[in-house]
Amino acid sequence: MSRLTPRIVKGFKDAPAASLHARRRMIETVRGVYESFGFEALETPAIEYVDTLGKFLPESDQPDAGIFALKDQDEQWIALRYDLTAPLSRYVAQNIQALPLPFRRYQIGSVFRNEKPGPGRFREFTQFDVDTVGSAAMAADAENAAVLARSLTALGLEGQFRIAMNNRKVLDGVLERAGLGQPQSDPQAMTALRAIDKFDKFGADGVRLLLTSGRKDESGDFTKGAGLGAAQAESILGFMASGQASRSATCDALADAVKGSARGEEGLRELREIAALLDAMNLADTAVAFDPGIVRGLAYYTGPVLEAQVTFEIRDDEGRLRQFGSVAGGGRYDGLVGRFLDKDLPATGVSIGVDRLIAALEAAGRLEGAAATGPVLVVIFDKTRMADYVRIAEELRTAGIPAELFLGEGGMKAQLRYADRKGAPVAVIAGGDEFDAGTVSVKNLVLGAQAASGAASNEAFRAEAKAKAQVTVPRAELAATVRAMLAGAAR
Amino acid sequence: MSRLTPRIVKGFKDAPAASLHARRRMIETVRGVYESFGFEALETPAIEYVDTLGKFLPESDQPDAGIFALKDQDEQWIALRYDLTAPLSRYVAQNIQALPLPFRRYQIGSVFRNEKPGPGRFREFTQFDVDTVGSAAMAADAENAAVLARSLTALGLEGQFRIAMNNRKVLDGVLERAGLGQPQSDPQAMTALRAIDKFDKFGADGVRLLLTSGRKDESGDFTKGAGLGAAQAESILGFMASGQASRSATCDALADAVKGSARGEEGLRELREIAALLDAMNLADTAVAFDPGIVRGLAYYTGPVLEAQVTFEIRDDEGRLRQFGSVAGGGRYDGLVGRFLDKDLPATGVSIGVDRLIAALEAAGRLEGAAATGPVLVVIFDKTRMADYVRIAEELRTAGIPAELFLGEGGMKAQLRYADRKGAPVAVIAGGDEFDAGTVSVKNLVLGAQAASGAASNEAFRAEAKAKAQVTVPRAELAATVRAMLAGAAR
Repeated sequence: MSRLTPRIVKGFKDAPAASLHARRRMIETVRGVYESFGFEALETPAIEYVDTLGKFLPESDQPDAGIFALKDQDEQWIALRYDLTAPLSRYVAQNIQALPLPFRRYQIGSVFRNEKPGPGRFREFTQFDVDTVGSAAMAADAENAAVLARSLTALGLEGQFRIAMNNRKVLDGVLERAGLGQPQSDPQAMTALRAIDKFDKFGADGVRLLLTSGRKDESGDFTKGAGLGAAQAESILGFMASGQASRSATCDALADAVKGSARGEEGLRELREIAALLDAMNLADTAVAFDPGIVRGLAYYTGPVLEAQVTFEIRDDEGRLRQFGSVAGGGRYDGLVGRFLDKDLPATGVSIGVDRLIAALEAAGRLEGAAATGPVLVVIFDKTRMADYVRIAEELRTAGIPAELFLGEGGMKAQLRYADRKGAPVAVIAGGDEFDAGTVSVKNLVLGAQAASGAASNEAFRAEAKAKAQVTVPRAELAATVRAMLAGAAR
Repeated sequence: MSRLTPRIVKGFKDAPAASLHARRRMIETVRGVYESFGFEALETPAIEYVDTLGKFLPESDQPDAGIFALKDQDEQWIALRYDLTAPLSRYVAQNIQALPLPFRRYQIGSVFRNEKPGPGRFREFTQFDVDTVGSAAMAADAENAAVLARSLTALGLEGQFRIAMNNRKVLDGVLERAGLGQPQSDPQAMTALRAIDKFDKFGADGVRLLLTSGRKDESGDFTKGAGLGAAQAESILGFMASGQASRSATCDALADAVKGSARGEEGLRELREIAALLDAMNLADTAVAFDPGIVRGLAYYTGPVLEAQVTFEIRDDEGRLRQFGSVAGGGRYDGLVGRFLDKDLPATGVSIGVDRLIAALEAAGRLEGAAATGPVLVVIFDKTRMADYVRIAEELRTAGIPAELFLGEGGMKAQLRYADRKGAPVAVIAGGDEFDAGTVSVKNLVLGAQAASGAASNEAFRAEAKAKAQVTVPRAELAATVRAMLAGAAR
């Protein structure tokens, strides 16, 4: 029989224990913030009908591009969700009679993108969203920013992030002033909007090319431009760079750019309203800024949009310094639920990219000390006495102490190496002598490692540590001895 | 534009907040037990190559039956995992050089079965597994039972469950004694094994038909039998009913059934070893029993198998009493990792069906009191003062009190109805009068509901409750007043 090669599917990843422990702590912190704003939990399935998901992905010009789709048993197309928002719109529409409105929920879950994988670019990743469905209030959009700011602060990133907000209506107004139609109905306007969204990637020069004649990348691939004239492109680039140090100054600077466009002026009024609410929440201009260059890629946004950026630099795979970039994003999508109803239902929300945020926390040194302590290891000295070892482990667990039997092959050395890899702070050792004498030996692996490594420079301390590192006690004192040793090891 | 119908895909389900709160508590309890045995966390992707998953589902006679599969961009078949065990085998084989052995991990996640959905039968469900890879020790199998027993006890089901264990080797021995080959290589033996596995569903008469000439169900569908003679079938049925009140008595009763089959006798020796370890862990014969009728459907099991049954009866959709049935299952699968390696790597584990267990806990009345308290609701009296309401909500959150702004449409009545649906214990109310006077009104919704409903029969108490139900205090006392009211409401 030919052997299979064990291989993970391209673009997917495994997450081992150390990363999951930190991740769980992070998620609990964010959940606490979400719940403090009155959002409640919801879970929807990983699979939806394709028409429920719709075609809102940034690059989805072809049908089904970007999603994992297959035909169900009844020949209907189903697909893995690419976000948590489209499924939420289905859930709300399906349960509209029973739900309290506004419906405010949080949801965490895997989403799937059938894209070409790249470094740090995965095809399954975790999103952690809050959404308010059934509210047109700008306070809901201001809260999107507040929830992100409070979450990042709670995670220890105060002063190291910036929430950047904009309004699609303002962007529409600027495009209108440049002589274009609405992106929803005018392909040229949509191409221009996508060009603006590429500022992070290609800079002003790249956006200029994408707005006008098109851009060829290093590999020679050509992206068609929006076909704007030079003056049109410059006015848009000027608008993108019009952000000021304060939210109110940015609003003032935008007034000219949207003047005469009813939609653009409405968008600016909304931003001014949000600015007043952010002030009331004491969110500094440095923590939540208005940034005219923010677009967000998903096609369903209709109003305020925002993203959370981590502001420190990291080194990329080639060792170059670069901005860490965005860890969360979202916006208002007043039309998404209405696809299912007789009328639109206004809605807005924001999504944290959990894996991105974990990477940011790691880069900021905020994941240190997050590793879990391993269990106490019960060393197996004599396999014929397995029942005795089982009793020792049970006794420890009954006393509330996690304990693991060594169930593999190998002698003392192999077992202590195993203990080390599991992060076991203590090992319990018993052979024939101990069982006959009614005793048990307890080894402090933390102290033992210190004594052996010579990390302690003081000779007397090392001798003492070595002496204390293993004790033999009456069997009845097992749990108490281990507990005392664990308390010392934790210090 | 024609409207979409909002519909969830057949066989999938949404989980609202109330169920998720209980579920999270349940998962944390089980995680605590898993970690107390030294298992550590792992997450693998939802998608694997089809050959990694293999064909181990009970009814997978056709290729790809039972799984959601599609072709990847590079024309390779990929699929959603149907369990967490096959992906684990891939993970261990792929990382064999780096992992400590035995590798003991727990994992929780969605699994997917592309089957015909039915009542209580979903196509996406959550499993919560522990596995020990790289250990042939029967102590690992005994721990499977112990982990389940401790988990169910910790969840409040003591005395209401039964872990039933058996050994595939014993079953193989019995089939061998009946003149059949090994199920892995003899299709007739595999058919017989599947017939035994149907005891829960069809009873002794149904199994007899499946072992012999075949069985026609109520809809007229015919399932081919294993073609055994009457005497062969009776000997197998006799074996299935040979369970005794104690594990050791069952072992004694099985001795005859496997006598002369080397494989069967080996299986019985393993069960006796497990019995001694279960005794050492003080697991009663009623909590962990040996049951010769247990098979478990997955084709990859090679040794001890087990399932956890909840022993009380519930009423089904037609109102008939029936056994609740199994909430967890597992066993030893010594060949699964070896598919990728030069040699077999022994492994064993067990999987809790999270949704099944939640249903069992609900039926046992063990989910009561699990609902979360809602946030404090800040009522919006005057939309032009939104910034003031935002300040109130922020002040409460800063004091550690979850607070939600009402962001929908509607007056006081609609907002208090909303508060009720969100389980809000307190509402904060402020209009022009309060803002002018520098005060705020705080309404105790729990007490208010009691006073209004007349649940309190004592007239004086009701009057007092009504009086206490709403107070107006200086703005500076907001958080303290709310906190005091929450403490009272919790009593």
